[in-house]
Amino acid sequence: MAIILDGKKLRDKLLEELKLKIDRLSEKPCLAVILVGDDTPSRIYVNNKKRAAESLGIVSEVFEYPGNVAEEEIIKKIQELNADKSVNAILVQLPLPEHINSRRVINSISPEKDVDCFTDTNTGKLFAGQPPAVYPCTPKGILLLLDEYGIDLDGKHVVVVGRSNIVGKPMSMMALNRNATVTVCHSHTKNLAKITKTAEVLISAVGEVLIKEDMVVKGCIVIDVGISKNSVGKLCGDVDFNSVSKVASYISPVPGGVGPMTITSLMLNTYDLYCEQKKRSL
Amino acid sequence: MAIILDGKKLRDKLLEELKLKIDRLSEKPCLAVILVGDDTPSRIYVNNKKRAAESLGIVSEVFEYPGNVAEEEIIKKIQELNADKSVNAILVQLPLPEHINSRRVINSISPEKDVDCFTDTNTGKLFAGQPPAVYPCTPKGILLLLDEYGIDLDGKHVVVVGRSNIVGKPMSMMALNRNATVTVCHSHTKNLAKITKTAEVLISAVGEVLIKEDMVVKGCIVIDVGISKNSVGKLCGDVDFNSVSKVASYISPVPGGVGPMTITSLMLNTYDLYCEQKKRSL
Repeated sequence: MAIILDGKKLRDKLLEELKLKIDRLSEKPCLAVILVGDDTPSRIYVNNKKRAAESLGIVSEVFEYPGNVAEEEIIKKIQELNADKSVNAILVQLPLPEHINSRRVINSISPEKDVDCFTDTNTGKLFAGQPPAVYPCTPKGILLLLDEYGIDLDGKHVVVVGRSNIVGKPMSMMALNRNATVTVCHSHTKNLAKITKTAEVLISAVGEVLIKEDMVVKGCIVIDVGISKNSVGKLCGDVDFNSVSKVASYISPVPGGVGPMTITSLMLNTYDLYCEQKKRSL
Repeated sequence: MAIILDGKKLRDKLLEELKLKIDRLSEKPCLAVILVGDDTPSRIYVNNKKRAAESLGIVSEVFEYPGNVAEEEIIKKIQELNADKSVNAILVQLPLPEHINSRRVINSISPEKDVDCFTDTNTGKLFAGQPPAVYPCTPKGILLLLDEYGIDLDGKHVVVVGRSNIVGKPMSMMALNRNATVTVCHSHTKNLAKITKTAEVLISAVGEVLIKEDMVVKGCIVIDVGISKNSVGKLCGDVDFNSVSKVASYISPVPGGVGPMTITSLMLNTYDLYCEQKKRSL
């Protein structure tokens, strides 16, 4: 039976440490969040982020816009936030409505306040093996979780399923920077099971139940980034936990695995940006 | 016996077409090249680029600096070239001497004159699946060569050996953007042969003879990006051509495969940047 990679436990530990650091600050870090439209999951995510921030003493300002807001209005707000010295970190909750050019909006965030590592400047640094302002939240959370359990990626074959800009691609770059051999699979991959069976570490970030027992070799380390609801409304990941946990050596559950680590990374990133900005302004 | 992916033939065809386009221009495109120190291969590469440019009617200005030049002096020159409307494309020949921060120098190039696609802004776009100003020369040349022979990457398993910022990493991103399943191997990869044998397309960019017949399955498409000299001074690639060409379906030779395509891409990129800048200044 696999060892559970317990994201909640690590989150609690890391955020407790972070809270102590923030308690000592006279001026508090500030995270600004932009939320457009009334996508229900987006609203839930933003509320969760706000609640986590406030419980740590991080100031969280949420700017809400209706779904039909003009792109320029959001960009103008971001420029204000860029110039505002009391704001350390800026997050635009994705997805944005279709009439808005998401890349243009994201790239209007000042790279030193880009708490998600989504701007071209920061992803370009990630790509070149240089440190970005901070690392993207989900892949960073996954690496923190692997570190906590003493799992070293050097020389391991990591198979990433999913190639999103938020998880799959940055995860593959960060695993490569840790000297893993990396394979990226996606919807056009033929014979997925043949490839997942070559994985020593399997990271799935798709959003549907896809990874079954017969797709994983014995001893594989399985990281489940997916989150979706099944037909009876139960939260599930990409991995069929019950069967896969019998062959895996380690496995992250859903919920309680990667999810809590993503929000932990966001809090750590906000604090890191704050510290970097304070250092620069000395 | 494998079909030869003939880079010289395609180069001649593409550059002939390009020359006709440039002949029609009243004002000629201009490529500025910065060469630091007296690394012999760098000097040869720069001379080849200059010669290719001039044969097409592209103006090529080479700015040479001694190996002990200050970083700031190069950056000042780049800023001048950025501001100079008669210069369309800027190339810094790598490697730079160790006392110079290469990333800082590269990132001082204006993204719209970044003919190699090396700046963070452009690699960030590549990473995000957005078009950069132009695509990096060697991977672009490889895709042009594959296109010429009707080889579609969609759904194929592409294994890239080498993870440089110039070839391995951008090649993997560009193959991913073409819907290939992509694996990146490197010096820390264990059991390389086991992975190369899963490749439908194998791209090696290492710089030593590494890929032997027993590492390639029958029908594999083999792209050799490496270039080195053997003990008797003969130019060779990463691939043992004589034996591998017996099992591969297609193979690019060294010399005459990827090399001519890299320089072709540089010329095409210079022209594309010129056209884009003219369009913007209308």
